Amino acid sequence: MMVDAVPGVFITVEGSEGSGKTTNIAHVRAYLEAAGRDVLLTREPGGTSLGEQLRGLLLDHRQAAMSVETELLLMIAARAQHLEEVIRPALAAGRWVLCDRFTDASYAYQGAGRGMEPERIAVLEHWVQRGLRPDLTLLLDIPVEIGLQRASARGEPDRFECEVVAFFERVREGYLARAEAEPDRFRVIDAGRPPEDVQQQIESVLERWLHERFRNQMES
Amino acid sequence: MMVDAVPGVFITVEGSEGSGKTTNIAHVRAYLEAAGRDVLLTREPGGTSLGEQLRGLLLDHRQAAMSVETELLLMIAARAQHLEEVIRPALAAGRWVLCDRFTDASYAYQGAGRGMEPERIAVLEHWVQRGLRPDLTLLLDIPVEIGLQRASARGEPDRFECEVVAFFERVREGYLARAEAEPDRFRVIDAGRPPEDVQQQIESVLERWLHERFRNQMES
Repeated sequence: MMVDAVPGVFITVEGSEGSGKTTNIAHVRAYLEAAGRDVLLTREPGGTSLGEQLRGLLLDHRQAAMSVETELLLMIAARAQHLEEVIRPALAAGRWVLCDRFTDASYAYQGAGRGMEPERIAVLEHWVQRGLRPDLTLLLDIPVEIGLQRASARGEPDRFECEVVAFFERVREGYLARAEAEPDRFRVIDAGRPPEDVQQQIESVLERWLHERFRNQMES
Repeated sequence: MMVDAVPGVFITVEGSEGSGKTTNIAHVRAYLEAAGRDVLLTREPGGTSLGEQLRGLLLDHRQAAMSVETELLLMIAARAQHLEEVIRPALAAGRWVLCDRFTDASYAYQGAGRGMEPERIAVLEHWVQRGLRPDLTLLLDIPVEIGLQRASARGEPDRFECEVVAFFERVREGYLARAEAEPDRFRVIDAGRPPEDVQQQIESVLERWLHERFRNQMES
């Protein structure tokens, strides 16, 4: 898959409820900064003032009538603003953009989870991204029951967290299927292991990936 | 152009700032109801609880950073919800849906007004409407300077009303070009005339259109 030629590097972190995204993404950031990279940490849905307002609507459990098409379009609208205001300018300036969830989440949640055909999601992906894709995606994978147990400790559930277990099973399978289909871009992390172990996996994945990327750049 | 086979009738009213849409759409409704039609009056962006929240974001003049892609996607998201929750069920039930603005406004405002390529708008139109299109569209056309004079009497301008005159000139030309390209669906009303004259034009357009539609139905 061709990627827009931009000087920066685009890394996304994906994972379902309770996979430790917040903690682990902070670890990714610290590792990259220790390696001398200028990292911009951001998230979806959100990442801009307007995007955070849309995030509020999307997670609001009172929005029970929201159709899956509307949900996806709002995610894409927030993404359009995020790309324009934050991601593309940072990449153009040569920064490393580290994003908590991106388009793979649309395929996992609205696609596998809610049944939207992936071909329809792809239409919007291409519409809004015009060829831009993550260089590397870390998937924090965790068995659903363990993830939900961890997430339930966080207080009142949002509109997604109100879903049934079968929904999260589909989301997990959706993520794993995408990782399998794109092994060059994805690295799967076993996030069900103890925290130090997960961080060790992340470090070794990043170390190898940086090494390969650096080697490829030297050769090209 | 093939239209989904639904028992109801879908009529949209378009027009730029100060074209008297609110007054004239009430007149359309009254005319149709007097003719024995079961009319549902609705509007875009909006028409649902979520859609009205999105309308608030879209018209909010503090959202100065909103990109044209985001603006269009939010319009389409509100439309998806509107179609699912209001328009399709009403048409399926055989009602006459009368909508204050619809997709032609996306082509006029985000397309002609803000420069989004019509081909890109068409991708989203087909994504969300899947063949559903208005049966009849009344375009309330008015010279820009007269329309803006009328609109300025309404108090603080919204995010669209803050635009420059050249923007509204492009919107008007965009609407007129669409009307010219689809004469079967569009009827252009000269909304710069005195109110009684405009209502007379509307009545005679509706009378002829209902007559033709009735005759076609008798023949088929």
